[in-house]
Amino acid sequence: MEEDSTLLDEKLQKIKRVVEKELSCSAHDMDHVMRVYRICLEIAKYEKNVDFDVLKAAALLHDIARVKEYQDTTGSTDHAVLGAEMAERILRDLGYPEEKIEKIKHCIISHRFRSSVKPRTIEAKILSDADKLDVLGAIGIARSFMIAGKWGQRIYLDVPLEEYVKENVVNGRIKDIRKHAPNLEFELKFKRIPEKLYTKKAKEIAKERLRFMEEFFKRLKEELEGRA
Amino acid sequence: MEEDSTLLDEKLQKIKRVVEKELSCSAHDMDHVMRVYRICLEIAKYEKNVDFDVLKAAALLHDIARVKEYQDTTGSTDHAVLGAEMAERILRDLGYPEEKIEKIKHCIISHRFRSSVKPRTIEAKILSDADKLDVLGAIGIARSFMIAGKWGQRIYLDVPLEEYVKENVVNGRIKDIRKHAPNLEFELKFKRIPEKLYTKKAKEIAKERLRFMEEFFKRLKEELEGRA
Repeated sequence: MEEDSTLLDEKLQKIKRVVEKELSCSAHDMDHVMRVYRICLEIAKYEKNVDFDVLKAAALLHDIARVKEYQDTTGSTDHAVLGAEMAERILRDLGYPEEKIEKIKHCIISHRFRSSVKPRTIEAKILSDADKLDVLGAIGIARSFMIAGKWGQRIYLDVPLEEYVKENVVNGRIKDIRKHAPNLEFELKFKRIPEKLYTKKAKEIAKERLRFMEEFFKRLKEELEGRA
Repeated sequence: MEEDSTLLDEKLQKIKRVVEKELSCSAHDMDHVMRVYRICLEIAKYEKNVDFDVLKAAALLHDIARVKEYQDTTGSTDHAVLGAEMAERILRDLGYPEEKIEKIKHCIISHRFRSSVKPRTIEAKILSDADKLDVLGAIGIARSFMIAGKWGQRIYLDVPLEEYVKENVVNGRIKDIRKHAPNLEFELKFKRIPEKLYTKKAKEIAKERLRFMEEFFKRLKEELEGRA
């Protein structure tokens, strides 16, 4: 899926290269960035008055501080806040007008799931939606099981949901990721994504992707029980 | 899916506990053992003259030497061969008749993908089939992405198959598992499973599971390209 590069004009190519360099130790983060970029453009087709200079640059830059957040063992780095600062310098060097820089920064700061700053502009809403869609569908299934493999989770946990939450969730967070499982992440987190979406197109995509996930986990359970 | 225990009679319960102890550092291996046990029983419904004492014990014991194989850094341990030896002692202690012990050993030795001993009995054929089915379907998708996450693989590799094989496959083996990806494992290995199956029921299950995988990878590609 390298053909995306051809869609980027010169400034965006430069931004992409800076982001690639920042995320060089994480091919996964860069893959995510390009998926979010593509789905932003798809959602934008159905919205009016989208500033594509803002949307494209914000999509490419939204996770630029992700590796710095991982590396900060104190846990005080917020990649959305730091990312906006890093983006500001990059965009100014490239000669972006100040008013576009401000709009791009707003998209980056507000894209985060738990951010206190909510998206106010259409570009920020599209980016926030695109980022959330990337945990759903076949992509969401693949990513969940990659996380399961990384942390040594079981393939499936067949436990009553209420009981699991009581024992393993504190302040909305999973206590021990090693005792988690993709089917529980689906039930507890992914199914609630639609409530957090802003655009009509993203809601449609989410609905279809959740339907696919539902079917997948149903089938997985059947196979695990020797019924399929 | 703990209800299986209730299906096991006293001797099988003892065998299961011995296997659990041997595989205690790998919940995944034990999960696999119980899935294979269940699917063996499903396949056996459609076959005649199956000795269930042999089939059940063989299914529980087939991977008992798996952890010892991992731990042997010289690479000279074959878990099928060592597993059969370990099984022999366990079964004799439990008072299994010699002729059943021989049949169970044959199942264990011949279950392996690359084994030089091919399954001769119906119980060995069922076990071999059940073991291969466990890499297909939703289970196969989940397991492939867990391996991808463990080894830091990319979510998808969009490369021409011939080119990939030329650069990364030597004597039928992947040179570097970190540069592999689930969609390539599907194309190169999983699609060929049906040729290696013996029973009619397993072939039916494989066909349906492969159809599901095909659909999954097609959808994954569409989502990755921002088309779904």
